[in-house]
Amino acid sequence: MSDHDSRIDLVALANAIALPDAQWRAAAFARQARLTKPAGSLGQLEELSAWLCEVTESCPPRPLDRVRVVVFAGDHGIARTAATSAYPPEVTAQMVLNFIAGGAAVNTLAELNGASVRVVDMAVDSDLAYLGEHAETVAAFKVRRASGSIDREDALTYAEALAAFDAGRTIADQEIDAGVDLLIPGDMGIGNTTPAAALTALLTHTELALVVGRGTGIDDATWMRKTAAVRDATRRGRNRLADPIDLLAAVGGADLAAMTGFIFEAAVRRTPVLLDGVVSNAAALVANQLNYRAKLWWHASHQSTEPAARAALEYLDLAPLIDLELRLGEGTGALIALPLLRAAATTLTNMSTFDEAGVSDREAND
Amino acid sequence: MSDHDSRIDLVALANAIALPDAQWRAAAFARQARLTKPAGSLGQLEELSAWLCEVTESCPPRPLDRVRVVVFAGDHGIARTAATSAYPPEVTAQMVLNFIAGGAAVNTLAELNGASVRVVDMAVDSDLAYLGEHAETVAAFKVRRASGSIDREDALTYAEALAAFDAGRTIADQEIDAGVDLLIPGDMGIGNTTPAAALTALLTHTELALVVGRGTGIDDATWMRKTAAVRDATRRGRNRLADPIDLLAAVGGADLAAMTGFIFEAAVRRTPVLLDGVVSNAAALVANQLNYRAKLWWHASHQSTEPAARAALEYLDLAPLIDLELRLGEGTGALIALPLLRAAATTLTNMSTFDEAGVSDREAND
Repeated sequence: MSDHDSRIDLVALANAIALPDAQWRAAAFARQARLTKPAGSLGQLEELSAWLCEVTESCPPRPLDRVRVVVFAGDHGIARTAATSAYPPEVTAQMVLNFIAGGAAVNTLAELNGASVRVVDMAVDSDLAYLGEHAETVAAFKVRRASGSIDREDALTYAEALAAFDAGRTIADQEIDAGVDLLIPGDMGIGNTTPAAALTALLTHTELALVVGRGTGIDDATWMRKTAAVRDATRRGRNRLADPIDLLAAVGGADLAAMTGFIFEAAVRRTPVLLDGVVSNAAALVANQLNYRAKLWWHASHQSTEPAARAALEYLDLAPLIDLELRLGEGTGALIALPLLRAAATTLTNMSTFDEAGVSDREAND
Repeated sequence: MSDHDSRIDLVALANAIALPDAQWRAAAFARQARLTKPAGSLGQLEELSAWLCEVTESCPPRPLDRVRVVVFAGDHGIARTAATSAYPPEVTAQMVLNFIAGGAAVNTLAELNGASVRVVDMAVDSDLAYLGEHAETVAAFKVRRASGSIDREDALTYAEALAAFDAGRTIADQEIDAGVDLLIPGDMGIGNTTPAAALTALLTHTELALVVGRGTGIDDATWMRKTAAVRDATRRGRNRLADPIDLLAAVGGADLAAMTGFIFEAAVRRTPVLLDGVVSNAAALVANQLNYRAKLWWHASHQSTEPAARAALEYLDLAPLIDLELRLGEGTGALIALPLLRAAATTLTNMSTFDEAGVSDREAND
């Protein structure tokens, strides 16, 4: 059971996040109307540019020069006990090393789009030796080796869940204090779509068949094992909804708890977040339980093929920018969509107005 | 009527374009399978990376460093006679100057995404004085002042249509000879969605209500005038389908004819094209009539809100990458989607393989 002596102060968290100032939104649309283009012709990018003004508290918006992806890595007991993934759990640690070496998808996409990557081992099922000289930096916040198998036991103790949540907040603070303009939460963990599906089912009241997906590409038999695991996890979790930290302890994991703290703290610090796929969408659902204003500081990037991602984004009323059947994780979907944010920003910032360019506005037609 | 003495050699054009070599597609998917990510997890970007290998005839694909947007500007008589646009025809010339000054949406997006912009006056309804020192370069291929009002007269003579088509081919040759990696056709012309709708209705056999859109944002009364104009144009054009150049003369325009030649020649020269919105989609329909292989060298970028764009892309079986309710034109939709091509390219090019990174592939789970 959870440790009630160290419970989080839910009331304080519920008051920690400000609403964006509406003046920036109004200023964005007023500026859009003066740019040399048909009114409304940039479609969803106009709404996006207004959001950027809100969350950077500036019109035109502050540029998104410094973008940081933080990949939260962790193993999940369910991947070993129920074999819910197409890949063996050893891959999590191997991929952490791949991130450090710069060979993963998230690295190449960050390089392409002017972002940087940090990887954090929250609960990889290895001792620290696998990280070599990087252990001190990468595993500074490590909570344990693998979260528990959520079909039968808590993923974490309450103290561990709180430590992981606080680690995520601390990491966000570090990045924001270093001057980041936008944060992207990334995930790496064999089996991590299983707790993501359980959290999504519990928080969006969605039936299991509509939240359990194919993850890394599982076959029918594995999907049935995964669905049974999610069923058992949701039965264990449905009495643990009162405290989101306790819910993370029950059916989440250290990586999910840290990601939840990370995107929560970004909102506290008025720093925009570009969500990635199903794991970050599930973390967003949990953080939304802590404070409904948090999501105003986040934007969805893409529609993952994982069904829980759709359920989560619909529940949060966050609209994805692209739908390219991505399901890689690591923050890759957000990095792929990042240039669309910059496109929205640059048009609002750098286009000429009708007056500046000597172009007739539509009224001239009357 | 058209000038039959100078008819284009349709048979020669129908043989001018090669099929991409299937080896590059196979090589792309073989390489995708070895990269450190779940198989298929980059979704449509994997298909896109295979197309890039095909059209750059290389695996990994050649990088898209040199991207050129050519904006084909022209006025349309229909905008004056039937007032089918929300903006006055004078805006076309004003916007050409805005492109030259670098203040338009296409300029800011090209700057953001590492592309360059060239604007070509094919039939702007101004004498050359408006261009000042730029007249010689920008209007070198100008065919006439404004194309005819297609509800009642041909847009162009056959000779003018052929000259514009050939100008587009020459412009493509110039850019390709200068070393471009990817071409983007852009459009600027008050009223140009009217001929685009007429061409799309005729070539896709779609009823008028499903091809006539709101263009720059017209009201109901203007939409009815526009639909009547498209109806009259399609009646005039339906007996002119045998020769695509003659069709452009009947219901197209000099900008559309040049754009058709531009994307056709790109395919002849095995140079990839990223299509933009409804006007370039209509030009693609016409070029597809000349040679069905041409579209294999093109990719759709976005789903414009203009209904004719949907009809055209469905007819061509070209899938757009984004659907953000864009309807600006100028090549902007293609520039906004361009980073997705580069994302597809960089992952295939720069990610580590399972062997290189020491990561277990899924077979290790057996």
